[in-house]
Amino acid sequence: MFINKYYKLAKYNLFPICRSLTGRGIQKTLKIIKNEFPNLKIYKVPSGTKVFDWNVPNEWNVTDAYVLDKKNKKIINFKLNNLHLIGYSIPVNKILNKTQLFKNLYSLPKQPKAIPYITSYYKKYWGFCITHNKKMEFDKKYKKNDKFKVIIKSSLNPKGNLNYGELILPGKSKQEILISTYICHPSMANNELSGSIVSMSLIKHFKKIKKLNKTIRFIFIPETIGSITYLSKNLNSLKSNVIGGFNLSCIGDERQHSCILSKYENSPSDKALLEAYKKLKIKFKLYSFLKRGSDERQYNSPGVDLPVTSIFKSKFGTYKEYHTSLDNFDLVTKKGLQESFVLTKKAIEILQNKIFPNSTILCEPFMSKRNLYREINLINIKNSSRILLDFIQYSNGKLSIEQIAKKIKVDYKKAMQIYKKLFSLKLLVN
Amino acid sequence: MFINKYYKLAKYNLFPICRSLTGRGIQKTLKIIKNEFPNLKIYKVPSGTKVFDWNVPNEWNVTDAYVLDKKNKKIINFKLNNLHLIGYSIPVNKILNKTQLFKNLYSLPKQPKAIPYITSYYKKYWGFCITHNKKMEFDKKYKKNDKFKVIIKSSLNPKGNLNYGELILPGKSKQEILISTYICHPSMANNELSGSIVSMSLIKHFKKIKKLNKTIRFIFIPETIGSITYLSKNLNSLKSNVIGGFNLSCIGDERQHSCILSKYENSPSDKALLEAYKKLKIKFKLYSFLKRGSDERQYNSPGVDLPVTSIFKSKFGTYKEYHTSLDNFDLVTKKGLQESFVLTKKAIEILQNKIFPNSTILCEPFMSKRNLYREINLINIKNSSRILLDFIQYSNGKLSIEQIAKKIKVDYKKAMQIYKKLFSLKLLVN
Amino acid sequence: MFINKYYKLAKYNLFPICRSLTGRGIQKTLKIIKNEFPNLKIYKVPSGTKVFDWNVPNEWNVTDAYVLDKKNKKIINFKLNNLHLIGYSIPVNKILNKTQLFKNLYSLPKQPKAIPYITSYYKKYWGFCITHNKKMEFDKKYKKNDKFKVIIKSSLNPKGNLNYGELILPGKSKQEILISTYICHPSMANNELSGSIVSMSLIKHFKKIKKLNKTIRFIFIPETIGSITYLSKNLNSLKSNVIGGFNLSCIGDERQHSCILSKYENSPSDKALLEAYKKLKIKFKLYSFLKRGSDERQYNSPGVDLPVTSIFKSKFGTYKEYHTSLDNFDLVTKKGLQESFVLTKKAIEILQNKIFPNSTILCEPFMSKRNLYREINLINIKNSSRILLDFIQYSNGKLSIEQIAKKIKVDYKKAMQIYKKLFSLKLLVN
Repeated sequence: MFINKYYKLAKYNLFPICRSLTGRGIQKTLKIIKNEFPNLKIYKVPSGTKVFDWNVPNEWNVTDAYVLDKKNKKIINFKLNNLHLIGYSIPVNKILNKTQLFKNLYSLPKQPKAIPYITSYYKKYWGFCITHNKKMEFDKKYKKNDKFKVIIKSSLNPKGNLNYGELILPGKSKQEILISTYICHPSMANNELSGSIVSMSLIKHFKKIKKLNKTIRFIFIPETIGSITYLSKNLNSLKSNVIGGFNLSCIGDERQHSCILSKYENSPSDKALLEAYKKLKIKFKLYSFLKRGSDERQYNSPGVDLPVTSIFKSKFGTYKEYHTSLDNFDLVTKKGLQESFVLTKKAIEILQNKIFPNSTILCEPFMSKRNLYREINLINIKNSSRILLDFIQYSNGKLSIEQIAKKIKVDYKKAMQIYKKLFSLKLLVN
Repeated sequence: MFINKYYKLAKYNLFPICRSLTGRGIQKTLKIIKNEFPNLKIYKVPSGTKVFDWNVPNEWNVTDAYVLDKKNKKIINFKLNNLHLIGYSIPVNKILNKTQLFKNLYSLPKQPKAIPYITSYYKKYWGFCITHNKKMEFDKKYKKNDKFKVIIKSSLNPKGNLNYGELILPGKSKQEILISTYICHPSMANNELSGSIVSMSLIKHFKKIKKLNKTIRFIFIPETIGSITYLSKNLNSLKSNVIGGFNLSCIGDERQHSCILSKYENSPSDKALLEAYKKLKIKFKLYSFLKRGSDERQYNSPGVDLPVTSIFKSKFGTYKEYHTSLDNFDLVTKKGLQESFVLTKKAIEILQNKIFPNSTILCEPFMSKRNLYREINLINIKNSSRILLDFIQYSNGKLSIEQIAKKIKVDYKKAMQIYKKLFSLKLLVN
Repeated sequence: MFINKYYKLAKYNLFPICRSLTGRGIQKTLKIIKNEFPNLKIYKVPSGTKVFDWNVPNEWNVTDAYVLDKKNKKIINFKLNNLHLIGYSIPVNKILNKTQLFKNLYSLPKQPKAIPYITSYYKKYWGFCITHNKKMEFDKKYKKNDKFKVIIKSSLNPKGNLNYGELILPGKSKQEILISTYICHPSMANNELSGSIVSMSLIKHFKKIKKLNKTIRFIFIPETIGSITYLSKNLNSLKSNVIGGFNLSCIGDERQHSCILSKYENSPSDKALLEAYKKLKIKFKLYSFLKRGSDERQYNSPGVDLPVTSIFKSKFGTYKEYHTSLDNFDLVTKKGLQESFVLTKKAIEILQNKIFPNSTILCEPFMSKRNLYREINLINIKNSSRILLDFIQYSNGKLSIEQIAKKIKVDYKKAMQIYKKLFSLKLLVN
């Protein structure tokens, strides 16, 4: 079970890292993944680069961040939990009183034991996040005019980079399946690392398979700005080759299965996922595309039109631990991850087996030079040759093998045999 | 009520003019309209110019035309009624006997008080039109060999021009609505001036509107040769931009409402007109495209394919005063014109509000730089931002706002608000 | 009855010729056809020429072939029946014993009186075909070690050619009907000459017709390699112009009528053939496209996509005389051929009369210069002019005359009259 390995890697190595859209956290994360899969290519795109309507942000790094009370006690310490610091906080070195400090202190009154996860990517800001219990404790303990020292040792480098990783498992076909997950959240398990764990397990599984039908393209990207950057670099080839894809997010808990189909709900990956649920007898919740929130937003946008399907367990925004310190490896389990791995693997396998053959030649092929006819042409040509020619007749790049099978009145298994034979003879591509 | 003003202008200034396909009558008519709307552009196209299968005819002008009897009495006088002279009559200065004269004298035995309207644009000819009562009177009064002097002081100038007028009310969108009416009939009210009265009232109305959604293009042209000439000069831009249009003809009487839809009966202007009838609770008669007869013939022809709808009261050819001196301002009334103005205005307004938005960007827009996100990205993004993004997802240039509204599950009013916001942000065009 | 003439020509002049894919037999055959129709163009394509996936084979010729027994008696003599020699047999001059000879001796145990027809176009081979009775006789007569002399005076010339014939009956329209039949089988009547007899009769019939609506293109080709060669030379123009076609094969017996429709069963020639069966009250058997076997294989292949229909009496492979010496003029009769001629002629005629008119002009035509209006434009334009304009309105190159007739509410006969008038005026093409 691959899940075991990547579960441990994620829990012990990846979880503690302070990730964000950019910076050393994401670089370290990509290195750890590359350590598992040396074929992973790590790309960097300079801060400020125009990507469609956006610009790649400055690279953000933090060395330390804390709040000292008047007794020099570290009452909040970023080094204890990444979530304590608002993502993309600007550098700060200030003395504040309690009222001033509390304005930049965030907590969740309804979840008093959880540290919230907050970012301010595109507005210059700083702040700390703590449990509501801790905030109440501070409130009791300190007086209005008590002084606090706030230190944030961060940098926002306009000469930095945005990084992402890409791993391609080449298939026999130019047709591609895109698997996308994100690596921009610090210390969160379901809404982040579950996707990478399942993606890594899928890579491990599919790279063992010698003859992949279709190319599988795995990408590990920061969410939103990462997919936008990736699309701006690769749009034409993706549009030519991607026949479907899966966005993996919040895919590690045990509560339920759920998904969002592609915008017009008719992509090959939609069909493959629905078929996978059915085959595995999995009950699932289908969310409207209007409930989208992850990178399916970019892939399905007008003019991009990559028909990508999102697979979840408990969808982002629907579970109480979402975007808090409680989104951890109590919520995400090996069992939950394994179920998602099995499901996603099945959906990919189904898609792998959907083929739209295209004849490479005009008119019938010259079968004799390929030893497909009996050499002496007696009254009936060989039945096995016959059916090859039947198959080619319908290989117009628009009919799937299932559809061709119906046309030529053979079962799917037989049609696959024929397809394989013709493919090996280079009489078909797909 | 604009109708009042243009009713008077038509009745007292335009009606008496001797118009035809070309000549000073049409030039004078265009000047009068330009006096009301200085933005009207008046174009001239030289006689002889090849326009598709046709040639622009010679410019026809008349200074006088009459018939004298042996006592030098003007028994027929063009100056008393334009219709007395057949349109495009060649110059004549002849002495004829009664039999010879009567061969070129036209009347309507079944409508003895009406002067018929007759033209001979493309065959050299001359003749006079009188009431049948008058013809009977002449028949009694004059003997077979009585002499008559026929004088037609006309000219057919091969170095002349054909004129037409065009007024564009620019909208925010490149998409256009075409409003076409004709100005080539002399002294007829329903089958001519009713169209111009309604067109001018529409211009007056819509030019007050500051932010027209779609461009409205009004043209005042001679019928048939005028629309052919106009199309030959403007075909490509019309085909790119016109999403629907209305041809206005015989639109001033009080008897009924009627229309001819565009050839395949599925244009946006067809739908808008049918919706307007419904909203205004107007009963109407729908004529087959086979009953067409005005410029809808040219607009809908193969290869031109502008989906133009014709709006009538009593359609040409269906009322007894048609093409006679009885087609006057007893038949055409302010009430009849006002009804047609209200209807046409409503249809244009409906069309103005049909929008097919198109996203200007790939992927989602960067909302933060447009202050569309709350600056601190807490757990839920603002609902109002959310729905903007939903709208953009379906803005592919093929779905109307109504259709997008259904997709994103908001009512039409809300969808329009969203559309306006996104349009102002230049995130959509249409 | 043309059939008589070409029946005799085929029976007495064409039947005895030793034809194959290439060589003097096919050249002689084409010359005989050209003698009947001097407009036939004879083409040659050099051996070795690449034609799609194939290469034109070497030119095969035979001057003599026989087997002598030890007493120098010609026990098998190619000059007595072409079928005695396997097609494309390589040259041989050998002494063999009975066992060795018998390995290359083919017969049909179940049809002891028939000489089988066998070829080995693409593998170097030689052999003789005899009746099974004769083989049994030899078996009794000769001993195991008796010697035989085998002489095959054949040549396989790599500097030879493949020949085919093409005859075009130009129609008024660029639209074409393709009639294809093959001329590569030696001495067989149904599976070969029946097609040429019907094709020649059709040429004779249709060339008398002065004003063919559509061009008819007749080709006389070797089967498979011939159609592939022809397509490789003419693909673009065929794809532009061919609106349907008929492949004629095994069309001379009296047993039944049968056919194979084009691949997607919706071509104009499919509809025309089905209509012809119906009009002639002919019962027929419809074979699936999966039962194809003649040149419909090439015409309908992906990327070629010429919608060609095959017309048969007893389809190839379904009758006991098929590919034997019994496929002769006892099986093929004048009556059988005449029925096929009448059927095919009818189908072509139906197709000839299917017209998809296309307006040559934009906007309405200028009818006056064509004397289509009454010269003086009184109240109503002539009804007969009116309907011409109606017809033009729907002449968009996509609607057939039947469809236009429905649109403009006239019967088919009237629509044809209109079409002819407009065509003669050059206002329509098709």
